[in-house]
Amino acid sequence: VPLYVQLSGALRDAVHRGRLPPGTCLPSSRSLAADLSLGRNTVINAYDQLVAEGYLAAVVGAGTRVTNLPKGALSASSRSLRTGRGNLSPGPSLSERGKEIGATGRVSAKPGRRAFQTGLPALDEFPFALWARLVASAIRRPDPSILGYHHSGGYRPLREAIASHLRSTRGVQCTADQVIVVTGAQAALDIAARMILDPGANVWIEDPGYLGTRGALRAAGARLLPVPVDEEGMDIEHGRACHPPPRLICLTPSCQFPLGITTTLSRRLALIEWANQADAWILEDDYDSEYRYEGRPLSALQGLDSNGRVIYAGTFSKTMFPALRVAYLVVPDRCVDDFRTAIRHTGQEAPLPLQAALAEFIDRGHYAAHLRRMRRLYAQRQHRFVELCEQHLAGYVSLPPRDAGMQLVAYFEHPVDRERLLAEADAQGVTLSTLGPLHLDACRRDGLFLGYAGVPEGEMETAVRIVARAFERQRRAPRD
Amino acid sequence: VPLYVQLSGALRDAVHRGRLPPGTCLPSSRSLAADLSLGRNTVINAYDQLVAEGYLAAVVGAGTRVTNLPKGALSASSRSLRTGRGNLSPGPSLSERGKEIGATGRVSAKPGRRAFQTGLPALDEFPFALWARLVASAIRRPDPSILGYHHSGGYRPLREAIASHLRSTRGVQCTADQVIVVTGAQAALDIAARMILDPGANVWIEDPGYLGTRGALRAAGARLLPVPVDEEGMDIEHGRACHPPPRLICLTPSCQFPLGITTTLSRRLALIEWANQADAWILEDDYDSEYRYEGRPLSALQGLDSNGRVIYAGTFSKTMFPALRVAYLVVPDRCVDDFRTAIRHTGQEAPLPLQAALAEFIDRGHYAAHLRRMRRLYAQRQHRFVELCEQHLAGYVSLPPRDAGMQLVAYFEHPVDRERLLAEADAQGVTLSTLGPLHLDACRRDGLFLGYAGVPEGEMETAVRIVARAFERQRRAPRD
Repeated sequence: VPLYVQLSGALRDAVHRGRLPPGTCLPSSRSLAADLSLGRNTVINAYDQLVAEGYLAAVVGAGTRVTNLPKGALSASSRSLRTGRGNLSPGPSLSERGKEIGATGRVSAKPGRRAFQTGLPALDEFPFALWARLVASAIRRPDPSILGYHHSGGYRPLREAIASHLRSTRGVQCTADQVIVVTGAQAALDIAARMILDPGANVWIEDPGYLGTRGALRAAGARLLPVPVDEEGMDIEHGRACHPPPRLICLTPSCQFPLGITTTLSRRLALIEWANQADAWILEDDYDSEYRYEGRPLSALQGLDSNGRVIYAGTFSKTMFPALRVAYLVVPDRCVDDFRTAIRHTGQEAPLPLQAALAEFIDRGHYAAHLRRMRRLYAQRQHRFVELCEQHLAGYVSLPPRDAGMQLVAYFEHPVDRERLLAEADAQGVTLSTLGPLHLDACRRDGLFLGYAGVPEGEMETAVRIVARAFERQRRAPRD
Repeated sequence: VPLYVQLSGALRDAVHRGRLPPGTCLPSSRSLAADLSLGRNTVINAYDQLVAEGYLAAVVGAGTRVTNLPKGALSASSRSLRTGRGNLSPGPSLSERGKEIGATGRVSAKPGRRAFQTGLPALDEFPFALWARLVASAIRRPDPSILGYHHSGGYRPLREAIASHLRSTRGVQCTADQVIVVTGAQAALDIAARMILDPGANVWIEDPGYLGTRGALRAAGARLLPVPVDEEGMDIEHGRACHPPPRLICLTPSCQFPLGITTTLSRRLALIEWANQADAWILEDDYDSEYRYEGRPLSALQGLDSNGRVIYAGTFSKTMFPALRVAYLVVPDRCVDDFRTAIRHTGQEAPLPLQAALAEFIDRGHYAAHLRRMRRLYAQRQHRFVELCEQHLAGYVSLPPRDAGMQLVAYFEHPVDRERLLAEADAQGVTLSTLGPLHLDACRRDGLFLGYAGVPEGEMETAVRIVARAFERQRRAPRD
């Protein structure tokens, strides 16, 4: 810290503490410099700084004086100046909404690639060199139009690329105008919830379901009504029997999170019929629709809707990599302008140079190629993973057959000490999660929720063996 | 579109429209292929697709039949299948909150670099080649820990770099833990408003002021109470006389938006004293604090607070470029965990590889060097701009002296037809904005609000002459 800054700090502190009261005439820079054995410029700089800040005033012919500042305020803020932190009051509290958001849990994840963390694609297989080239070329000689505050709702070429991809692969009925690009699926859920829900609105959610959806809905003040999931998807009849009609129904029809179930056609039709009756919104989180390993994928629910009541959400986090932070909504025509305005107020806009690079990545066919490659790879990894689980975890867990997604559920065959199981696996570098925390109502059938897509086959056996040993130790030496 | 997709579409449509009722037995693939003069594989593929989707069921020994689907739902969604859009009902409406957000205006901007758009730094002077290298190197061989969902609230090295920059240049009292990295200043305002305000909360805002702040506050349900700005900053005494005590005071003390006024020390102290009395939050938007051309900058208001009631917001949009989409909050210690959790629910997280590149940019000194260079450049541009305004716009506008920021206010000397003035300048490629829309109460003194920092000196005279001609035409030929 330069000497003049130290000196001005000491003088400022003296003013705050009242040791230099208003009107005090300071010594001339020459005499203070002599007294303190400092250079005269040091003193002049310190005085200048405090004059600029308003603590001192230089009056021609009358030297430098302490200005007249409100005494109470000066002393109230004095504590902070040296100690770095005061304690006069606890400080104002968060809003009720803020406390609610802060208290809504998320599954925490450790940085880096670990078996069997959920939600992670094969980071080892993404073409980062190619991606780096595209991003760098979007930045190096940028078009000024992608550097400012423009293109709210998304860069046009990217919206075109997304719309065309969704129409051809997901049966979504949309134009590029209806696509709203945001900073990740969580932002998509958050802005959709705010735009269609007022505090207290009834929302049907899948139980078990995604914590992020619950967080976004709670932040919007929604009243969450859990609807169980059976082998056909969300159990609408249960919802009708037990809950008031919804303002919004949230679901993951392609690959239910976490159970991996695809909502059947008859359930989809029933859902739309019920939404028509209740005049409800539907938020279709088209989670993991890209990864289906047998048969052809069902189209999106959005394509069955003829009343503009479906808001469709998709993301590049699982098909490229999570830290990309680009996802999108498809909203009904009549809401496009409001969503575009809204996003300028919420700041959930992805950086334009990244959007430009992503448009290139899709338009040049790299995205489709990567998806095809990952579909084959994940099918292999799933096959190998199921094989290893049958070999090493038989008797501990059972895996219902699934043919989609990036993770699998393995139900416990016997009661286990979850906390101990997870801690023991974690100590060996393996991340386990359970279904329990994903339930809002009581969890009737607990199990592990395991991400396999991000785990190279060569590392899989070691990781499954670690899980097996954690089960085994528990069987041999039950605690209490 | 492949033939089998066309065929499956036609059959699906027939099911929806009731022309193929439940239970209908379809012809064998061989006979349908013959009837339609199609290849047999085309028919098999179409049938397979519809079986996968649930429209048809293949019963061993009994051929392929239409499944039993709810009739009402089938016909309700039939319109959408071919025409792409139905019209059975207007569709559900947005929430009251959503309508409010959608109706809150923003000043719109045309893409690209135009004189005298506000909020734009010198895009022609940013070291994009260097920045592209840093970004590409963060992406090319990425550390897996920056690819996933980690580092909520910001990448640690970036938070360290920001904290150290703020402590040394802005007198902010903070640790890296208190820094929350978000996707731009608007996201910073949005998340802060949601975390500290419940619907109906009283908020004092500067009038005139920033539309983005108003938008974020309105989205959070706040009640906006306009407080006029005088030559010392926000007029606290006016607020105390006219408004109920605030839950939050929002201000831009370094360089008031739009008037460019620096809040004086005595006003800062009075503000903190009043906030202590009212137990109010203060949101310090440290807008354009980096650009001060004479004298030394006043430190941040945050540094005077000893009760943890200031939330400090800063951005890289004006010091680097807007589409970077990185900004930050400094929040009191006691709120850090809640803000970090909140940001995982709102998705206002900047891409980690970008954060890593930005940390490098700061740590290697490029950021400080760019700031120094821009400070000199903007001082020159301001000087030249004022000179040109005095030369060409004398009699039309008057410019109060300012020594900071990236834009200037030029008050109208006589009443003008604003709409015509702006349209005529716009037609010549010059963007003008006025103070009027930035006022919540009636605008007592209107004028132009002109961004000069982004305009190269060589282009400035032409642009100022265009403005002069627009004024002149109005003087010569008043409309009506």
